[in-house]
Amino acid sequence: MGFDYLTNVPLEKAKREYIETLIENGFGSVSERIPVQNACGRVTTKAIYAHISAPHYESSAMDGIAIKSSDSFGATETTPVTLSDSQYTVVDTGDPIPEGCDAVIMVEDIVCHDDGTVTIFAPAAPWQHIRQIGEDICAGEMILPAHVRVSPASIGAMIAGGVLEIEVVNRPKIGIIPTGDEIVEPCTDPGTGEIQEFNSSIFSAMVEEWGAEAVRYPIVPDKYDKIKSAVLRAVDDCDIVILNAGSSAGREDFSAKVIGDVGKVLNHGIAIKPGKPAILGICGSKPILGVPGYPVSGIIVIEEILKPIVDYWTENERVEEAVVDAVLSRPIVSSLKYKEFVRARLGYVGDKLIASPLNRGAGVVSSFVKADGMIEVPQGCEGYGASESVRVKLLTSEKKLRSTVVVTGSHDPLLDELGNLMHTNDRNVFMSSSHVGSMGAIMAMRRGEAHAGGCHLLDTETGEYNLSYMRKHFPDRNVKLIRCVGRQQGLMLQKGNPLGISSFEDIVGDKVRYVNRQKGSGTRILTDYLCTKHGLDVKKIYGYDREELTHTSVAAQIAAGSADVGMGIFSAAKIYGLDFYPICIEEYDLLIPDYAWDTPVVRAMLETLKSEAFREKILSMGGYTVDNPGEIIEY
Amino acid sequence: MGFDYLTNVPLEKAKREYIETLIENGFGSVSERIPVQNACGRVTTKAIYAHISAPHYESSAMDGIAIKSSDSFGATETTPVTLSDSQYTVVDTGDPIPEGCDAVIMVEDIVCHDDGTVTIFAPAAPWQHIRQIGEDICAGEMILPAHVRVSPASIGAMIAGGVLEIEVVNRPKIGIIPTGDEIVEPCTDPGTGEIQEFNSSIFSAMVEEWGAEAVRYPIVPDKYDKIKSAVLRAVDDCDIVILNAGSSAGREDFSAKVIGDVGKVLNHGIAIKPGKPAILGICGSKPILGVPGYPVSGIIVIEEILKPIVDYWTENERVEEAVVDAVLSRPIVSSLKYKEFVRARLGYVGDKLIASPLNRGAGVVSSFVKADGMIEVPQGCEGYGASESVRVKLLTSEKKLRSTVVVTGSHDPLLDELGNLMHTNDRNVFMSSSHVGSMGAIMAMRRGEAHAGGCHLLDTETGEYNLSYMRKHFPDRNVKLIRCVGRQQGLMLQKGNPLGISSFEDIVGDKVRYVNRQKGSGTRILTDYLCTKHGLDVKKIYGYDREELTHTSVAAQIAAGSADVGMGIFSAAKIYGLDFYPICIEEYDLLIPDYAWDTPVVRAMLETLKSEAFREKILSMGGYTVDNPGEIIEY
Repeated sequence: MGFDYLTNVPLEKAKREYIETLIENGFGSVSERIPVQNACGRVTTKAIYAHISAPHYESSAMDGIAIKSSDSFGATETTPVTLSDSQYTVVDTGDPIPEGCDAVIMVEDIVCHDDGTVTIFAPAAPWQHIRQIGEDICAGEMILPAHVRVSPASIGAMIAGGVLEIEVVNRPKIGIIPTGDEIVEPCTDPGTGEIQEFNSSIFSAMVEEWGAEAVRYPIVPDKYDKIKSAVLRAVDDCDIVILNAGSSAGREDFSAKVIGDVGKVLNHGIAIKPGKPAILGICGSKPILGVPGYPVSGIIVIEEILKPIVDYWTENERVEEAVVDAVLSRPIVSSLKYKEFVRARLGYVGDKLIASPLNRGAGVVSSFVKADGMIEVPQGCEGYGASESVRVKLLTSEKKLRSTVVVTGSHDPLLDELGNLMHTNDRNVFMSSSHVGSMGAIMAMRRGEAHAGGCHLLDTETGEYNLSYMRKHFPDRNVKLIRCVGRQQGLMLQKGNPLGISSFEDIVGDKVRYVNRQKGSGTRILTDYLCTKHGLDVKKIYGYDREELTHTSVAAQIAAGSADVGMGIFSAAKIYGLDFYPICIEEYDLLIPDYAWDTPVVRAMLETLKSEAFREKILSMGGYTVDNPGEIIEY
Repeated sequence: MGFDYLTNVPLEKAKREYIETLIENGFGSVSERIPVQNACGRVTTKAIYAHISAPHYESSAMDGIAIKSSDSFGATETTPVTLSDSQYTVVDTGDPIPEGCDAVIMVEDIVCHDDGTVTIFAPAAPWQHIRQIGEDICAGEMILPAHVRVSPASIGAMIAGGVLEIEVVNRPKIGIIPTGDEIVEPCTDPGTGEIQEFNSSIFSAMVEEWGAEAVRYPIVPDKYDKIKSAVLRAVDDCDIVILNAGSSAGREDFSAKVIGDVGKVLNHGIAIKPGKPAILGICGSKPILGVPGYPVSGIIVIEEILKPIVDYWTENERVEEAVVDAVLSRPIVSSLKYKEFVRARLGYVGDKLIASPLNRGAGVVSSFVKADGMIEVPQGCEGYGASESVRVKLLTSEKKLRSTVVVTGSHDPLLDELGNLMHTNDRNVFMSSSHVGSMGAIMAMRRGEAHAGGCHLLDTETGEYNLSYMRKHFPDRNVKLIRCVGRQQGLMLQKGNPLGISSFEDIVGDKVRYVNRQKGSGTRILTDYLCTKHGLDVKKIYGYDREELTHTSVAAQIAAGSADVGMGIFSAAKIYGLDFYPICIEEYDLLIPDYAWDTPVVRAMLETLKSEAFREKILSMGGYTVDNPGEIIEY
């Protein structure tokens, strides 16, 4: 009857040292490739990009007829226009828009005649009721960054983006070895001296609730050799081993000796009650946990010591259902007739939770992927104004929201890459970016609703970027201008440039279909400036009113052949294999307001911005110049 | 191109009427029998009773030696006692206690000699370090009531109680039928006019997160007959059918017509946006939900309309991790050396959350089954006093705690049955009962810590039950005395009565091993009274100091042969097949304080108490008389 002394290490210290030692020795998950349909609840290990756009062709958003919009011009209630059957095609929702058509009229708004003609009573605006290519997702766009949990909606977004398999964190395999001469398999009639083995059933259920896979080994008698070979086998098969009972220092308690012989005992004896005789062991990179035999002690040791280890592996994040108050960044207009559900991005700026409503299109499944919360506008309510307080149902955790850098402004794919790199370096910081154009960035800073924003505003008088805008909008110098990248702007063209476009002026022309960016975006200001400079009449540019919100969505329209040319950045053209006619290098900078400057999330973002990894990533994308990013530009 | 009109019913109204109609038509779960190891997270459909006690034999709680305690009497540091090798048996934790032994001495407290003798330096109290039969669970005890969720710990408790298979709510099978000429199976390169079918993947992931089983059917083209036969097949196979797309009123929208033809359309058109064209249909008892094709609309309809239906079936309850403040009902003494984890029962009485620490034995897995919360006593803290405020980590939902009737007092199995019937009638009310004896009930009322309590206190001067105690402890009459049942008390005896016990006085005797109830319990007061009345010297009753907390645990000791006789109620003797020598009928009543009287949970309990179902259940148990239960007894 020999007894070893047990230590009495405080729980927090033992836990911290255990997990640190495990990580030092290489403990952690690996990536596995699985069908996207099976990925719900799993965690990505790599950023996931769309292979194709969704929709990947121009389609009707309504049941009705597709027409050439110019055929409808002039139609009114009093001077209706009648179209012959060669002038329209019947389309259902989702049908492709026939060649030559550029608008859809809803079936409710037409009158059909027996001779096949139809009468309309209002003109159709170009692109009316047409789902543009990439309305939901553009090819090349990042659908999910690395190290985030896959939701049902994101499964849909990935399939829509042509992604059918993804890399996710594998499930840890946890081997459970029950030991003891007195224990027997569960039965309804155990004899005297026989104890039913139920701990392994409890532990299996616990670890499976946490997303691990439990492997239960047969009962091993209290013999040193048998326990040792059972442990060696489990270490071979599994990622984590639980050796149950025999963890005390009694006559037949071999656990500590076995663990010490196959690996190393870091601690034997934790200052918790119940659970004191726990053994914290390691073999290679694998934890071997000696767990006391009494079930209550065992449950507490598993919960307190094993759960943080499993959570580290699975990158577990628990989302609680909660409803919180947030400030609207933009108004929501809603119909009195309906209860409306509006998805929103959320972010804390200081103590203010900002809700930015997302694209409300019913076909835009990516809005669910981006959503952090859901605003319910009751039936009978007309909506809410900007800066009004609204109730939001959280779809993510408060903790995550408080660790998210809110980026609002001009779109550039580098922001997705910046966010992905930052989160990969530190799993506790996140980026949420909204694309509202460069002027949108300035407005967001003035309203105190963002930590940062991308900006590339050309002063058409001086040819300088950003400086004069900063001076005008922030006379108090309470927003910093941070150097980010130089971007090659130019005309994105059909592959092979079939229309032979060789100057900016060539965007005017009968056969040329232009696709534009939205007003207020830096690229639009540049385009308007170039038109003025070259004396072009924008009314003569077909499609100048056709507005897309991002560079990639402009590129997607051209790649799909629904437009011929659009202004944008080189990296977007490259993703889609488009030809590119360079116009100028513009400065794409970040605005960071003083109120956000000294926050952990902004510091994490700036650190990533200055990193070599970011520089390499950006240069590999093409069309960027990188010169001292993160520098403060005086204005 | 014909169009039906869609209605615009408010969401809440549509939901409420839908679920009411479904329930009226017999929608709901059935019971299925599964191995207990697979039951984690499932919901019981019947109360589960232990088949065997745990432990089911007297076992050592420590590594050491088993002895006859009388052999150790007189041992001190200065006058040690040496035992020969025939006077002790070496035992490890869990080993059965050898015949004739009644105490265990820890190995740390003995000195071994080479000749096989051992020396001890202190006397061993009878039953010291012995785990009594049924310490954790007594055969016949209710382990889980009906309609509660199975946790990992309760799996252990059921196996310990010899229960290997249980009846649980089956998972609803949800058939998902994608329809549409334009949709194709997920692929990486869809053609123009082909839309990838990803809604069914989103919906499958959603319903599986809610505990349902998703069955995805092949894509059906927009043809009335094909859709109809697909729906008929799915209605045959599944419990719930989702018909995706075609739910509008367009040219090829056949969903409403099909649902109307195979069953009935309750509503077509809900006042929500997105999601308006949803169709709420039923066929027999099975819901058929027509869901719009746009993914965002679909997700919202599934979440808003289908989730409550699935939750109704699965009896879903969401537990949020939360830490709350509670008032301790009893002191907790803790060691400075450890961080201690104490399981507790919780209950709201008024706005006060009461935490009652549970059995802290490391072997008592049922303490985890009963626990609503966990109190962590930090290392270096000596514990807390009664009525002190402590932080408690919730293991159940606040909502459930606020709907729980807290019953504190004398134990009777009828309380488990009462709670089970009440919860079966109304799934939103729960009972939590603690066994602290009849005097404990009075104390709990005085401290304002319980809604009700069982009480059977004999006035040894008048022979009356309860009345004089009420007058004494509640002179202000602020606690009501409610008639419950009459109980047959008597001596529980070994089957066949081998010792030939035929009067109360026979409990004294050399060969008779008595087992007692704890001080303060009504049964103990009765026993003490009977001893005085019959002039028995309790010091001459072997085992009079051996105290058990419940009738069933006394019966369990006798059934297992570790005791011969004990006072208790007939129903406990009956469960264990014991002989019974009747002594008297006692009044077992309930105390309900005025502060709890007019609360929903107490009303629900009293309603069940007065019900015919309760009366039948109680009479079937035997040994009870039931006469106007629920009546207020004046005192």
